[in-house]
Amino acid sequence: MISVVLLGAGNVATHLYKAFRNSETVVVKQWFNRHLKPIQTYKNEVEITNELSQLKEADVYVLAVSDDAVSDLSSELPFENRLVVHTSGSVGIYDLDKKHRRGVFYPLQTFSKNADVDFKTVPICIEVIDKTDLKVLKSLSTAVGSKSHKVNSDQRQSLHLAAVFVNNFTNQLYRVAHEITESQGAEFDILKPLILETAKKVQDLSPYMAQTGPAKRNDKRTIKKHMKQLENEQHKAIYELLTSSIQKTHGRKKL
Amino acid sequence: MISVVLLGAGNVATHLYKAFRNSETVVVKQWFNRHLKPIQTYKNEVEITNELSQLKEADVYVLAVSDDAVSDLSSELPFENRLVVHTSGSVGIYDLDKKHRRGVFYPLQTFSKNADVDFKTVPICIEVIDKTDLKVLKSLSTAVGSKSHKVNSDQRQSLHLAAVFVNNFTNQLYRVAHEITESQGAEFDILKPLILETAKKVQDLSPYMAQTGPAKRNDKRTIKKHMKQLENEQHKAIYELLTSSIQKTHGRKKL
Repeated sequence: MISVVLLGAGNVATHLYKAFRNSETVVVKQWFNRHLKPIQTYKNEVEITNELSQLKEADVYVLAVSDDAVSDLSSELPFENRLVVHTSGSVGIYDLDKKHRRGVFYPLQTFSKNADVDFKTVPICIEVIDKTDLKVLKSLSTAVGSKSHKVNSDQRQSLHLAAVFVNNFTNQLYRVAHEITESQGAEFDILKPLILETAKKVQDLSPYMAQTGPAKRNDKRTIKKHMKQLENEQHKAIYELLTSSIQKTHGRKKL
Repeated sequence: MISVVLLGAGNVATHLYKAFRNSETVVVKQWFNRHLKPIQTYKNEVEITNELSQLKEADVYVLAVSDDAVSDLSSELPFENRLVVHTSGSVGIYDLDKKHRRGVFYPLQTFSKNADVDFKTVPICIEVIDKTDLKVLKSLSTAVGSKSHKVNSDQRQSLHLAAVFVNNFTNQLYRVAHEITESQGAEFDILKPLILETAKKVQDLSPYMAQTGPAKRNDKRTIKKHMKQLENEQHKAIYELLTSSIQKTHGRKKL
């Protein structure tokens, strides 16, 4: 059994809490937040607290707080030599106070407030300073059903950056597509199967191999037609830049 | 029973052929291609030909050929007043020779040579000039298991353009993510669940509502950190442009 004290009340904290609660090999000893209100609904199933001085002993302290808060909170913890991990993709492991045994437990997935998360689909990137701490973090991943990946800080930060491309930026391309179809009264819904298929395709095939379309074929006529169709200057700029990026990847001439 | 003559031998033609063959309400009377070689393997199950003069009578002639070939091929067909459709997202319906009853049968999906296609996941955009031709194209969609959508030319062309954003450009963002992770020796595979989840999320939620991340939050510290991490100038440009696009959409200040 792994005992956990959870700190924070955002999306990641809440989803982690539920995953820990549903695991048979994890016990959440306490849930801390500066303000009790957001975690009040859970008070009948877990001990909640807003006092750092009241924190109990546990195998792992999980700081699921905003990036900016990690460092200060770790310093304020009134104990030493216990395993303290943060859950951020971009905060350094050394930003945690050195009085602790330090680690990172970074779930690489997009969390929405309302949708439940199946941790089987959430890879967890693990980092430790002392190798002996690896085991408990691996077990904690397994306990919630996740696959864990041991990474170093550079690798984790490159994954966090890459995640912005495949999540936030990709989603913005969906948004642009929404604007383009809407402007002609076409249904964005018609694109949804294609959106899903595009994501499925790279589960088995490299993005390089999966590429198709006018930019890759260097189909100048279609590219020109598309550029003419686009009314929004920023959409035009995105079209040009990504077309040029595809052509660079696939060894075509630049636009 | 709908009788079809199929023309062309590319990905779309081949996938359509298989879908027609597997349907109980469609019969492929002939499969035409300029060169017989690519369709030779099917000669025991369907009549193949490379002679336009030998084309038989059918309810629909499906021109699944490259965009540039549609217009000329439609003129060369040695008959009039029959229903002739092309399968392109960007070619105009009036590019078909006016001696025919004209239509468009555009399957909006990404087709790979090797992977089988489930037409249940392929929306088909239908366009006709004479409304009486709508019925047979709708039936043809239903026959292969697809949902059909009646669109006009502007709508179809906006869908085709939007498809480039959600398919080719999105795939290129996956590629960039692949390069970023690889450069640090991190596994691109760790991002695959996030790629899938990002696509799934907008099946029920608008891309606007689904957006998260540093650009939307205007988290300048993380944005600056990411920009510093990026070594490739084009990747930097993509990061800046899509960050600025997200901020415009969500009413934040530009970078």
